[in-house]
Amino acid sequence: MRKWEENVRKVTPYTPGEQPKLESMIKLNTNENPYPPAPGVEKVLRSFDVNRLRMYPDPLVNDLRSAIAKRYGMTVDQTFVGVGSDDVIAMLFMTFFNSKKPILFPDITYSFYDVWADMLRIPYEQIPLDEQFQLNPQDYCRDNGGIIFPNPNAPTGELLPLSAVEQIVQANPDVVVIVDEAYIDFGGESAIGLIEKYDNVIVVQTFSKSRSLAGSRIGYCFGNPTLIKYLNDVKYSFNSYTMDALTIALGTAAINDEDYFAQTTAKIIQTREWTKTQLKRLGFVFGDSMSNFIFATHPKIDNIALFEALREEHIFVRHFNHPKRIAPYLRISIGTQEEMEKLITFLENYLNV
Amino acid sequence: MRKWEENVRKVTPYTPGEQPKLESMIKLNTNENPYPPAPGVEKVLRSFDVNRLRMYPDPLVNDLRSAIAKRYGMTVDQTFVGVGSDDVIAMLFMTFFNSKKPILFPDITYSFYDVWADMLRIPYEQIPLDEQFQLNPQDYCRDNGGIIFPNPNAPTGELLPLSAVEQIVQANPDVVVIVDEAYIDFGGESAIGLIEKYDNVIVVQTFSKSRSLAGSRIGYCFGNPTLIKYLNDVKYSFNSYTMDALTIALGTAAINDEDYFAQTTAKIIQTREWTKTQLKRLGFVFGDSMSNFIFATHPKIDNIALFEALREEHIFVRHFNHPKRIAPYLRISIGTQEEMEKLITFLENYLNV
Repeated sequence: MRKWEENVRKVTPYTPGEQPKLESMIKLNTNENPYPPAPGVEKVLRSFDVNRLRMYPDPLVNDLRSAIAKRYGMTVDQTFVGVGSDDVIAMLFMTFFNSKKPILFPDITYSFYDVWADMLRIPYEQIPLDEQFQLNPQDYCRDNGGIIFPNPNAPTGELLPLSAVEQIVQANPDVVVIVDEAYIDFGGESAIGLIEKYDNVIVVQTFSKSRSLAGSRIGYCFGNPTLIKYLNDVKYSFNSYTMDALTIALGTAAINDEDYFAQTTAKIIQTREWTKTQLKRLGFVFGDSMSNFIFATHPKIDNIALFEALREEHIFVRHFNHPKRIAPYLRISIGTQEEMEKLITFLENYLNV
Repeated sequence: MRKWEENVRKVTPYTPGEQPKLESMIKLNTNENPYPPAPGVEKVLRSFDVNRLRMYPDPLVNDLRSAIAKRYGMTVDQTFVGVGSDDVIAMLFMTFFNSKKPILFPDITYSFYDVWADMLRIPYEQIPLDEQFQLNPQDYCRDNGGIIFPNPNAPTGELLPLSAVEQIVQANPDVVVIVDEAYIDFGGESAIGLIEKYDNVIVVQTFSKSRSLAGSRIGYCFGNPTLIKYLNDVKYSFNSYTMDALTIALGTAAINDEDYFAQTTAKIIQTREWTKTQLKRLGFVFGDSMSNFIFATHPKIDNIALFEALREEHIFVRHFNHPKRIAPYLRISIGTQEEMEKLITFLENYLNV
């Protein structure tokens, strides 16, 4: 080993789902939206003045921040944006999780949380979900350095009622509680309303799922202005111009089209409920997902064999090895109705029913 | 103060140059390129399949990484990309500057270095440039935790010969030496060639200046594959998908147009040399900048009054208060020939010559 390697921050990075580049495939592995972005997004793409790209973008990202704030009835100084919600959460960890006490998050959850904590040398405790993969708010009423959990949870899709979220926020006034609502638009009730009531809560959302813009990298969060000020100070100490000029314009067009958003999320919810009925009929077991995916297992089949068989057919789903008790499950994103019908047909043949 | 504020990472952020939004102005304050991006960039913008934006981008950014690597005769595993060179440098600080010994950089330099060090709690020493704002390589031959400097330096524009850069790299085999070459394309000799010879050197470059894409946020760096692997591990522990799909495509189009790059940088160099002649005639004092800006002072006039007078005319330049010995200077970016002629005409009137 070379001497300079002693001072390297050594980490084990997060592994994102694969992005195969096949002409024809059913991609149900990374919870993307099966519908294209709102029509206004294409309009921006075709009309954007390319000469603007020679200049730095607005470091305050005001157009997009204002549009997001307006959509959710918040003020601009309660609103922060980043390069995807991963960027937002990384900045949140850096800004608010600097206690010597462990931060808390579920054992079965978004598998980036422990990566961030390890990378930033933040102590943490993973709180086990119960046998039905339910989060018990009581488990979060103990001394800690901060709390983060997704709602609905990933990869289970289980939704915590707003009253339970409030219970956690209320029980922890001395630390920052982050509610990661990447999937909230598919049937959950957001905790945004808690921000006026509690000064220690941050709510994170994203354009990657319900806004069909995973490819553009836009995440945001809301919190009281003091929290957002601290967060911006860290962000502007890291990179002044994180969001490029074009993405600011594309995102603004997307958030301004409320009708398209309502239509596409309604379609996905409808297809999800249809898919649940079908999977149940085929003997799969799963919770009542309120997200754009279903986390399912089947008592009679080997899920790895199924994963591979699906892959052969160019149907991609996601499998997690860790923790061990979720290894028998597959996470299936909700595609178009047509894609899900093809999946079900395949499963009927595979199961011989 | 609320209890949770005890665990906030409190920092003083970097202040970028202002981005005024006037219809008609001469913007010489943030070292942007006065020429539009390469024609291929607009082509991508008009033809890009908007449906691709619903899916996550390639986390490996392979198209762009390969194009950059090819342009510089490097391999993909020697090449890293980020959201502007600020993002690249922030990741480099996190990855490689974890010693208890201070890192070294000049006292007059890119004013983000101390912000990153403060934010990441990295000890540092600012090494004074000499009276002529020259960096002395000997000053960097001492015990340290890492080294970073721009070449040419900012905001002075002074170029260090490659032999002096090599002297610093060679004298510090036990730490990582970062050469920040944001302005190298305007007349300097790059240190990229040192990478094959030394395993402790990283060379950072950007699309923001010579590639006319400040608005797109693309930076990159080269180093030996071991360094790049460590850097990627940290990056993928921070955010898997930092670069959006569209920017990957736009950047690839830009780097592939070598002729346009050669033409526009040649024009900027020509205008810079013309501007030097004119400023000299008007009594300004400045070093022999090899960048796309000139850092000048005038023994007979108050530079703040000039700054304000220029501003009144919608001519924007940059002033730095810190450190004190550069307070009498103004940094003037090189615009088009026409813009610089207007500046000189204004200065002639202002100085009554």
